[in-house]
Formats: sequence, C-alpha cells, structure tokens
Amino acid sequence: MPTSQLDQQFAFLCEIDQLKNVIRQSPLLDQSRKENSAEHSWHLAMYALLLKDYAEEEVDISRVIQMLLIHDIVEVDVGDMPIHQTSSGGSQEVLEDVAAIRLFGMIPGMQGTELLALWREFEQSISADAKFAKALDRVQPLLINIRTDGGTWTENGVTLEQVLERYGPTTKRGAPALWERCEQWVQQHFAAREP
Amino acid sequence: MPTSQLDQQFAFLCEIDQLKNVIRQSPLLDQSRKENSAEHSWHLAMYALLLKDYAEEEVDISRVIQMLLIHDIVEVDVGDMPIHQTSSGGSQEVLEDVAAIRLFGMIPGMQGTELLALWREFEQSISADAKFAKALDRVQPLLINIRTDGGTWTENGVTLEQVLERYGPTTKRGAPALWERCEQWVQQHFAAREP
Repeated sequence: MPTSQLDQQFAFLCEIDQLKNVIRQSPLLDQSRKENSAEHSWHLAMYALLLKDYAEEEVDISRVIQMLLIHDIVEVDVGDMPIHQTSSGGSQEVLEDVAAIRLFGMIPGMQGTELLALWREFEQSISADAKFAKALDRVQPLLINIRTDGGTWTENGVTLEQVLERYGPTTKRGAPALWERCEQWVQQHFAAREP
Repeated sequence: MPTSQLDQQFAFLCEIDQLKNVIRQSPLLDQSRKENSAEHSWHLAMYALLLKDYAEEEVDISRVIQMLLIHDIVEVDVGDMPIHQTSSGGSQEVLEDVAAIRLFGMIPGMQGTELLALWREFEQSISADAKFAKALDRVQPLLINIRTDGGTWTENGVTLEQVLERYGPTTKRGAPALWERCEQWVQQHFAAREP
C-alpha cells in the first residue's frame, strides 16, 4: 500500500523533531544550558511577530514567520554553523542545500517544492521578507550576548570590530532601527569591558 | 528617561525566554529527555504549516500559527498543566488568564491588547482558527505517544477509552480527517498491548 500524503507529512513532522537536539553556541538567558535550534526558531518567530514594524521595506509577516520556522531545519542533517567559526569556504552552503532537498523532499507535492523555495529565499537574502528575517536572526543572539555578559563573544574572544562587522550590515539592511538600538548596546558592552 | 516602546518589546521577548525551561510530560521522539514548551510551540506551528488543508472550516493559517506560537506563553508564570492530571476545577484557567494579562501587558499599545485577545480566542476555542489550533495541540502529543510506545499514556496508566475521550472530540471538531488517522493509530496501539 503506498504511503498516503498525510502519512508523508507526519513523517516529515517526526523527522524534524531532531532539531530539538541541535545545540547552538548561545546560552539561555538564565545561562542554565545552551539553546537548541527548535526553541531558537520559536523565539525568532516571536521576534518577527513583535518587531514587524521595524522592517526596512514592506514585508509579509506571515511569510517572514514561516521562513524563520523553517530556516534551521537543514541542521537536522548538517548541524549548526556558529557565526564566530572560521568560514567553511562555501562547503557548508552546499551541504545545507543538499539537506534542504532531502528534508523538504519528504513533503509530497507542491508543498515540499514551495517550502524548499521559501528556505532558499531566506538563504539568498534578496527579497524584503528574507532580509528582515535575516536581520532578526542576528538580533536575537546579539541580545542574548548583551544579556549574558558577552556570551559567545566573551567565550570566543570576539572584538567590538568583529561584532560590528558580523552583525551590523545584515541587521542594518533588514531593520535599521533595530540595528541602531543594537549598536548602542554593543558599544556600551565593550566600553564597560575596557581596562 | 521613560522606556521606549522598542525596549518594552525587547523586555517581553527576553521574559518569554523562560518558556524554554518549562518542561512538559511528553518526551522527544528519541526519548533522550522531556520536551519543553518553547520547542513544542515551534513544532505545533510547523504542524499548522504542513497540515492546514485538513482544517474542518476555512482558516487563516497565519492567525493559527500566531496563536500556536503564543498559546503556552502563560506557562512562564503558571507552568504546564498535563492533560492526564486531575482537573483543577477551573483555578488553573483563572491563573492562566492572570498570567496572560501580566505577560501580554508588558507589550506596549494595541499590540499587547491584540495578542491577549488572540490568546483568549485560542483558549475559548470557538472560532475556526482556534478550533483548528486546539486540534493540532492534541495531535502533536498524541503522535509522540504513538511513536514512543505509549509515552505519557503508559506512564500514567491511561486507557483506550480515556485517550479517545481526551483527544477525540477536540481533534475531530477542528480537523476530522486528522482524527480519523489518529484514531487508527490509537486503536492499533492499544490492540497491540492487549494480553
């Protein structure tokens, strides 16, 4: 008996349960443990819902939320690539695309095709929706670091200049008003650490 | 200096970080640990995205997803109430409403008011969007139990009749086609356990 469309959808929903075991570098705000990519995705969707009015261009917030819900699903196959890790020279991007094809390929019909396209739109970061989603994906971990005495910056010996370079352009492009506030926090954080 | 609207929104987004530490009864599918309410909320939003065509009535899937993202936020204050626990006689509902007023009250202006109304709409379970969201909130833990050899049913000595009564009506009302498949799993699960 062929697997029904519904059973294929349920199989995908079970497969992505593994995202709850993909551990990121960022801690929870109470620093009791590291954050996982499933709860990070929920938190980002909440960021989008609350902060939609700060998008640089007009966005479809429903699409932004959907993008953020699925943006890390490839990590089920390839794990998380921390922002402060040395570049993979493009190999991570290829592996992530292969993972996206496998995972969204589990979803039958046009639905799988559409979600693959939405994931690639996020990765390409050209559309207004994707640029805003990418900006939020910088703001959330930045705020965690601000609230946890430097978090992954302190751990990795990241400098003020590196923070401005790694978070600034992406955040500013999608949500300039958010970057303005973030930059104040960043400057205050590093000023307070000066000897 | 008064706190800006943006800083109030960020304060709310930091406050709900605590949802990552609210532990549910359901395990992850690999049974390595219990699920928390933040990652559960992400998973439910993915259920809505994938299964929207199975809603009994026409729904606005963007609203359903937003409902599911916020539906457990009150647990930051009052914790999770497991489905197989003895009824609180209505006191839990009162505590949850107080928590909703406090938490959504952290969000300035109409945005807080609107999110409180959306949360209450989910709780009341009268609108088409809320009925579908509630159905999904039954289907996800049911599928976990099916995939983990009975999960919380086995732990709590829950019978076939209790499963049908606690999951059936809510699921059937919002998504009858999903209940049809769920009921098959449930019947098979309990049939296989008969001595």
